[in-house]
Amino acid sequence: MTNITDQLCQKIIDTQNPSAAGIDTKLDYLPESMTKSVKNFEDAAKAITEFNFRVIDSLSDVVPAVKVQVAYYEMYSVAGMKAFYDTVTYAKQKGLVVMADVKRNDIGSTAGCYAKAFLGETAVGENKDTAFPSDYATVNAYLGIDGIEPFLEYAPQKGIYALVRTSNPSGAQLQNRVLEGGKTVYEYMGTLVSEWGRPYVGEYGYSSVGAVVGATHPEEAKTLRKLMSHTPFLVPGYGAQGGTSDDVMVSFDERGLGAIVNNSRGILCAYKKDKFSGMNYWEGARAAATAMQEDLMGALNRRGVQKITK
Amino acid sequence: MTNITDQLCQKIIDTQNPSAAGIDTKLDYLPESMTKSVKNFEDAAKAITEFNFRVIDSLSDVVPAVKVQVAYYEMYSVAGMKAFYDTVTYAKQKGLVVMADVKRNDIGSTAGCYAKAFLGETAVGENKDTAFPSDYATVNAYLGIDGIEPFLEYAPQKGIYALVRTSNPSGAQLQNRVLEGGKTVYEYMGTLVSEWGRPYVGEYGYSSVGAVVGATHPEEAKTLRKLMSHTPFLVPGYGAQGGTSDDVMVSFDERGLGAIVNNSRGILCAYKKDKFSGMNYWEGARAAATAMQEDLMGALNRRGVQKITK
Repeated sequence: MTNITDQLCQKIIDTQNPSAAGIDTKLDYLPESMTKSVKNFEDAAKAITEFNFRVIDSLSDVVPAVKVQVAYYEMYSVAGMKAFYDTVTYAKQKGLVVMADVKRNDIGSTAGCYAKAFLGETAVGENKDTAFPSDYATVNAYLGIDGIEPFLEYAPQKGIYALVRTSNPSGAQLQNRVLEGGKTVYEYMGTLVSEWGRPYVGEYGYSSVGAVVGATHPEEAKTLRKLMSHTPFLVPGYGAQGGTSDDVMVSFDERGLGAIVNNSRGILCAYKKDKFSGMNYWEGARAAATAMQEDLMGALNRRGVQKITK
Repeated sequence: MTNITDQLCQKIIDTQNPSAAGIDTKLDYLPESMTKSVKNFEDAAKAITEFNFRVIDSLSDVVPAVKVQVAYYEMYSVAGMKAFYDTVTYAKQKGLVVMADVKRNDIGSTAGCYAKAFLGETAVGENKDTAFPSDYATVNAYLGIDGIEPFLEYAPQKGIYALVRTSNPSGAQLQNRVLEGGKTVYEYMGTLVSEWGRPYVGEYGYSSVGAVVGATHPEEAKTLRKLMSHTPFLVPGYGAQGGTSDDVMVSFDERGLGAIVNNSRGILCAYKKDKFSGMNYWEGARAAATAMQEDLMGALNRRGVQKITK
């Protein structure tokens, strides 16, 4: 079986870069010259779209994937959702794997609408159209399998990453509670997600059903990696949130596959840092993405992975 | 302290109707005459908006609130989000309490964007504007308090309902697991949500921080009602999902307050049923909403609540 995660793995091998650029663009990430005449949501959305396109142009041969966080677009209303649509569509055109970071969740019939919105197609009369074309969507499985199944209708050509252990400080509040029998909530959730993904394992050894496992808790990620051998990890929390390249190594296998590490602010706002001074924002983004690649590859090298391979 | 839940309680008292109409409009809920020329997302969004406006016109003196499920709009892309915007805006204009059923969740900084999108305002240059004006948003607390706090910035004038015990069949998969110490996950979540809401209790005795507690599990709702005395419940699962008016009574207090019961399909698609044959869709919606009111008030009467009062 060939699945979307095979495509992602191959792109990671092609670029020798197991990272995703997070296109989570806030208006104040943009240079002042682009925002000084912004007066309403439409202006904001146009400026953000222009920024995103140049960043994507600059990154498209460096990173295998982008993760686009929809919250940053929803706050600019309908115009923002147009910018989200244009951004995911453009990234797909540029050959990037697109992850819609939407963390959607609901009962089955409603989850079916979300699945159509991001992974499938929606019928309109005798036609069908794609609402927000993406390869993966992130999901929250608090409602159990019937909120997940509608997304699996598009497996294995399209994938999901379900929240298992999140990177934020209060992630432990529910996720690290211990269930009767001794497993934590995140371990239990990890086991469920691993089971849900079993029918969709591809040629590279990983399912189209992945898990979100934060960079900020390496010991827990290590436990999960053992529990979930065929589950690809999407790893947030590198950089701004404090996770290092060494922290994330536990999520990789001995070929350098099995995980993709996201960085958003560190890439989008690189041009504001002394380290990249004098660069345009898109040059800064490329330089930061390349520095992240070197950082991750350095950590993989120290673990004995000289090159990411199938 | 006056909070949004006071406003909702007063509207429930004014209408003597503890129910919300779910405006979760799919294209195939519409009469064929409205959809026959629909060819794309824009056509679909226009038809849905027209349908929603007429339904809202017809219901605005019968129900205190509408719950608008965003998934049904996202699947029609940017045009669908325009229909969502227009629908929540119109319902607010008509004086209804508006619940954005979005079940959003993320780490703090990202949750802040969602909170702006549905409850707050977003800065654009020197101006501010409202992305999707709503009174309440539903949220998922799998990430703990730091994904919730950004929404509480708008408390108590704006509210949330956090998922505690959902109405779907697999809701039990995580939510009914037992934690060390004997509490279930849903009880633990209920306790957290109750604590988060404590600072925002209004004049009617309920917080602006509410909980989603499905109609399909009355015994569990009863337990939660005791644990969460100042937490208002949003109760899905009535009607199409199998919950009855007697099932939901455990969520109400002795004044007939404390819960609001949602019905979506039963109202929007009423005109397709034999019971309401010959009616237009908006007449059917009104008749079904009135029948639901009578059903709930009948059940309250049998419990000794003759009239909902402060």
